[in-house]
Amino acid sequence: MIVMVEQEDKKGHVIHPPKADELLDIAIIGGGMAGATAGIYSGRYLLKTALFTKTKGGAIVDSPDVENYPGFKTISGYELMSRVLNQAQHYGTLIVDEIIESIEKQGDVFVLEGSSGKEYKAKQVILATGLMRRKLGLQREDELAGKGVSYCATCDGFFYKDKVVGVVGGSDAAALSAILLSKYASKVYIIYRRGKMRCEPYWLKILEDDPKVEFIYNANISELKGKDRLEGVTLDTGKELDLDGLFIEIGAEPSTDLFAPLGVETDERGYVKVNEEMKTNVPRIYAAGDLTTGSAGFKQLVVAAAEGAIAATSAYHYAKKELNNAR
Amino acid sequence: MIVMVEQEDKKGHVIHPPKADELLDIAIIGGGMAGATAGIYSGRYLLKTALFTKTKGGAIVDSPDVENYPGFKTISGYELMSRVLNQAQHYGTLIVDEIIESIEKQGDVFVLEGSSGKEYKAKQVILATGLMRRKLGLQREDELAGKGVSYCATCDGFFYKDKVVGVVGGSDAAALSAILLSKYASKVYIIYRRGKMRCEPYWLKILEDDPKVEFIYNANISELKGKDRLEGVTLDTGKELDLDGLFIEIGAEPSTDLFAPLGVETDERGYVKVNEEMKTNVPRIYAAGDLTTGSAGFKQLVVAAAEGAIAATSAYHYAKKELNNAR
Repeated sequence: MIVMVEQEDKKGHVIHPPKADELLDIAIIGGGMAGATAGIYSGRYLLKTALFTKTKGGAIVDSPDVENYPGFKTISGYELMSRVLNQAQHYGTLIVDEIIESIEKQGDVFVLEGSSGKEYKAKQVILATGLMRRKLGLQREDELAGKGVSYCATCDGFFYKDKVVGVVGGSDAAALSAILLSKYASKVYIIYRRGKMRCEPYWLKILEDDPKVEFIYNANISELKGKDRLEGVTLDTGKELDLDGLFIEIGAEPSTDLFAPLGVETDERGYVKVNEEMKTNVPRIYAAGDLTTGSAGFKQLVVAAAEGAIAATSAYHYAKKELNNAR
Repeated sequence: MIVMVEQEDKKGHVIHPPKADELLDIAIIGGGMAGATAGIYSGRYLLKTALFTKTKGGAIVDSPDVENYPGFKTISGYELMSRVLNQAQHYGTLIVDEIIESIEKQGDVFVLEGSSGKEYKAKQVILATGLMRRKLGLQREDELAGKGVSYCATCDGFFYKDKVVGVVGGSDAAALSAILLSKYASKVYIIYRRGKMRCEPYWLKILEDDPKVEFIYNANISELKGKDRLEGVTLDTGKELDLDGLFIEIGAEPSTDLFAPLGVETDERGYVKVNEEMKTNVPRIYAAGDLTTGSAGFKQLVVAAAEGAIAATSAYHYAKKELNNAR
């Protein structure tokens, strides 16, 4: 878990985080890159902001080497997110170690109920809860994550130059991962439970023409092997494969339970529909990061950060208008 | 000027930047955050990429303290951009110290002419030339930039807590800057050459109701005063003002000369129209950063970075398709 450092007072940047029990200007739900960046911006706009998260830093903290976030040639996901969350805290955003289990609109205020049973009140809400990656559900899968087992070829593919990798899945995401991995790896196995990939035929053709790619259809992985890191897999066909890396691309999905009751619109896959200002269809509810339909669906840290910044800025513009109307 | 460090070879990340005279997969024009991030992604996609820039790092290198870029509590614009450009170079993007003066389409290839007279050829182009901030055109304006003279309240406003600042301009951007500055500063003068701000009445009302704000209409600044940093201004009305900071918000505009001849569509202000994938209307020409209509027009480093990442990814997807069609 990421431990928040004490905030120094310097250069007049004195921080007065809100109390958790006062009426918040902004409640940010989720402590990944989108939420944390929203926290930086919202704090700097001097809005009373609390960020609610249990998994401080989000899914990226599992990545040992982040190399494509501009500014760091290499940094662990954990270290990067520690920095960003501390930066949010530095500007007065209160980090609350709490899962928000429900949001209810009461008059003009959103009432958030935490897993501790505590209630919080906020004028505006930024949803930044990310996605739940689907896992294979195998023993040792969590233990080997970041040690040969990966859920993001764009993030980690580069580490498998001249190595042998497997991709699990048959979707467009699986296909694009395999295409990208083929640029680095010496061999790419695609392991899919059905008889043919269900991705766009276009991507399938690229893969079928690629001499590095071998399809293993009608197969599931039954065991992950290796001591300190992944060394191979056993399939339910009995076949064994030696692998340096395994990319699990069987999908990810937003968890809609939190916001569906508020009437927040999603697409058919559960992604929150946002406009360019990261506004949802519900006034004063914004969304940012992997759970949105924004940014052409491109799921990268820097994109989540940008969406968080934009969401906080939209909320700030609204807050200014409100303040003025109240005068 | 930012000096590029030599690239190390480690962890198998051996870099083979293209030669400037070979056919490039991607030419990136502009070395600010959008272009540099496009360079990181394009390099990592193993596309032959060159980034053309004279002002390495873009306008942000004038900012002594960047505080709202996620990952750095405080960093100079110069240091941040050195890191990002080196990161792009680390992944094989060639940085060419050259202004591109024209782009011409010859068959399937874009031919770029540099100010040195050299020609470069590329299959795809990412425009990331940013904006030209309009300046007052006063003596010492460049010298005092970053030393009391600023062109970005969102970036620098935080440094003026309990200080006296001026805003020059009458547009929405000037109004929003003044509204933001009033949260920090003890006093905000708005100096505008006309008799009334031309911003949205809504913003004007907020400002008129704000006891910290004082309007100085029908006035221009004739002199910037101060030794090592700004201490005040003289107006053409003869009035003198003591100021800790002066925010010049008289607009910025894309320089369209480079891409207008290619038929790249812009809005009425000259901003390049892009879709969510950062594609312009011209196939194989993308745009990213401040010069685009993307991201609700929000001009921040992290947004430019995200747009650069998306542009490079779109170009990569196109390159993969091309490659396949050619087989």
